[in-house]
Amino acid sequence: MIAGSKERFMSQTIVVAQGGGPTAVINQTMAGIVLEARRRYPGARVLGSRFGVRGIVGGDYVDLSDMPEDLIRAIAGTPSAALGSTRDKPDAAYCERILTGLRKVSADAFIYIGGNDTSGTQQILSDAAGGDITFVHAPKTIDNDLMENDHTPGFISAGEFVAGAFLSVDLDFRALPGIYCGIVMGRHAGFLAAASAAWRIDEDSGPHLVYAPERAFDPARFIDDISNVMDRHGRCVVALSEGISGADGRSIVETIVPADRLERDAHGNVKLSGSDLGMAIERILAEGLPGKRARVDTLGYMPRGNIATISRTDQKEAFASGQAAVKSIASGGGSIALQWEDGRTIYRTVPLSAVAAKTRHMPADFLEPHENTVSRKGLDYLERLLPRRFEAVAPFV
Amino acid sequence: MIAGSKERFMSQTIVVAQGGGPTAVINQTMAGIVLEARRRYPGARVLGSRFGVRGIVGGDYVDLSDMPEDLIRAIAGTPSAALGSTRDKPDAAYCERILTGLRKVSADAFIYIGGNDTSGTQQILSDAAGGDITFVHAPKTIDNDLMENDHTPGFISAGEFVAGAFLSVDLDFRALPGIYCGIVMGRHAGFLAAASAAWRIDEDSGPHLVYAPERAFDPARFIDDISNVMDRHGRCVVALSEGISGADGRSIVETIVPADRLERDAHGNVKLSGSDLGMAIERILAEGLPGKRARVDTLGYMPRGNIATISRTDQKEAFASGQAAVKSIASGGGSIALQWEDGRTIYRTVPLSAVAAKTRHMPADFLEPHENTVSRKGLDYLERLLPRRFEAVAPFV
Repeated sequence: MIAGSKERFMSQTIVVAQGGGPTAVINQTMAGIVLEARRRYPGARVLGSRFGVRGIVGGDYVDLSDMPEDLIRAIAGTPSAALGSTRDKPDAAYCERILTGLRKVSADAFIYIGGNDTSGTQQILSDAAGGDITFVHAPKTIDNDLMENDHTPGFISAGEFVAGAFLSVDLDFRALPGIYCGIVMGRHAGFLAAASAAWRIDEDSGPHLVYAPERAFDPARFIDDISNVMDRHGRCVVALSEGISGADGRSIVETIVPADRLERDAHGNVKLSGSDLGMAIERILAEGLPGKRARVDTLGYMPRGNIATISRTDQKEAFASGQAAVKSIASGGGSIALQWEDGRTIYRTVPLSAVAAKTRHMPADFLEPHENTVSRKGLDYLERLLPRRFEAVAPFV
Repeated sequence: MIAGSKERFMSQTIVVAQGGGPTAVINQTMAGIVLEARRRYPGARVLGSRFGVRGIVGGDYVDLSDMPEDLIRAIAGTPSAALGSTRDKPDAAYCERILTGLRKVSADAFIYIGGNDTSGTQQILSDAAGGDITFVHAPKTIDNDLMENDHTPGFISAGEFVAGAFLSVDLDFRALPGIYCGIVMGRHAGFLAAASAAWRIDEDSGPHLVYAPERAFDPARFIDDISNVMDRHGRCVVALSEGISGADGRSIVETIVPADRLERDAHGNVKLSGSDLGMAIERILAEGLPGKRARVDTLGYMPRGNIATISRTDQKEAFASGQAAVKSIASGGGSIALQWEDGRTIYRTVPLSAVAAKTRHMPADFLEPHENTVSRKGLDYLERLLPRRFEAVAPFV
């Protein structure tokens, strides 16, 4: 069933879907795709598949071809994935069903907006299809961990949330000193946790420590680090990635949660969100620094698509990457990458294989070599992407 | 030591301090006090005590008398308590030291900005002082739980954070369905958790359930409630106050945390923040609804003084309540209450005893009698205080 569909001369049929975790601007990318498809291919049919590739398999589409532009723009300004999303990872059989679904609607192209798992799906489909359909991956992830990209749509808005949250909580802990740890999304990449340092207001500002998945987390070192900061600043504000891992590369969550409680998605990703890590950090603090006021929050879903911190830059770039995705159809598709050249973001089409199911880590030199803090180089990158949005002055204490 | 102090004709000496948890606008109240004191008492000395009453005891003041107005205004726009705060509750001996401190600087009046514990401190001091010093309590609390007040400075900004966060996370869970529980500050009053419902966009919107400290929390009922919502909406978004309590009136946190790990402040308040409640909720969900995707976040300090969601109305009211505090000195002080009359907020001085150490609960009829949802009456109140700030439209799923 194609809601709102009508007979037309089908010059081109483009299917669009959204995969993985929603963001504040993934609907901008959808809007960019729809409006650019209409412009470039007048009379084109644009079908939105509900819940990622599931809609293609089940024939569950929303027809975006004639949807009024003001509704498309209103959806674009709304966070989260308006078409619904999925974490399904197609195996060979699932893959065949998707291709059958795409052929059933005579799809010329399928644009899938998402992160590395989503680009992986496009790679698998592209390999299996054999050339009659063009596959495009449009980037999206608050984790900022796509290869070939300087940064990814969704990251800036989420980063602004995190930067503002840590600026604020640091001021709170100047007034009532103690230790604060905020756990921030980020499975394999520490960019979002590092964003906590983007809006520091002075040398005394937190976060004083940042722990990213890229560097082995050692509880004893963690306690030492905090002790040193407490001596220097009288308080300690810490940003921790949910994906922090031990020296063996296993995530801390994986080592503390009993195997029978560990939850995995179809891509094999362990569920990192939840209270286990916060609980473990609280225990480490209570044992290592007994009697100290310590507070641990799990920010979880707060930064991901928060309507209060949507960045206009992020919106524009997400929209433009949707337009670029449509443009790339004529040259055979691939993955749209946001690259930084001559002081601006450009949109380049790279092979799916360069991005698919790979992870871009935060560069090692974004952290100080011997300290768990963001380096000048890391700050330069973050301050370029996240210019300070709010003014704040240092308190009297 | 009085930083920046100089000799002057002391027509009036006013000491100001900030107590309890900081908010997004408690510095507005300080600014209102300072600027109104200068206007009303030209040549007045205005001393800011650092870290609440501790600064008075230790003689640790910042002289606000001649501070440039633009700096005062910049501080006013910055969240958290610029003078520092405290949770100290003065006993008789501590009380004597505060009075000695106030007399040492020849204080004519002491204005203490804070919540019910802070007003309690003012009551104790006022009773002990014997009339030579005027005591004023200026209201502040994100919990919105002060007697005599329609609402309190700090609540609107925190409420906007919560309303926006739940609007956003609900959209996220439309895209990737499951159960979401967000734990929100609120020790004895459910106002802030209820604020999660202020910006619902349609009948399908979450939060679908709200649990406040005012109504006994029953885990079996909780699971039933969620099951019913899942049947109706295909997902379930829940707001829980950190202070939810059982039928015996004890907070759930108190019943799940071993006595030797329970942390209390000087006012006897158990530490509710942290991961214990989140962990307990996760366990209840895993046992009651096995196999369902469920996510629990602890919003914790995020809403309290978040720079991204400071309300202009809240700022203005906080400033005005500081002005009202100064005005009340001439008539003997008391507690400033924000009341709602003829469609606007007015500032009335009420006796300290009417507010001190008391709690205003969310009215019972703000929740539906037989459902854990916010009633029409509750929504009317919340929508008056928290007019929708962001537009969002329903997704295609």
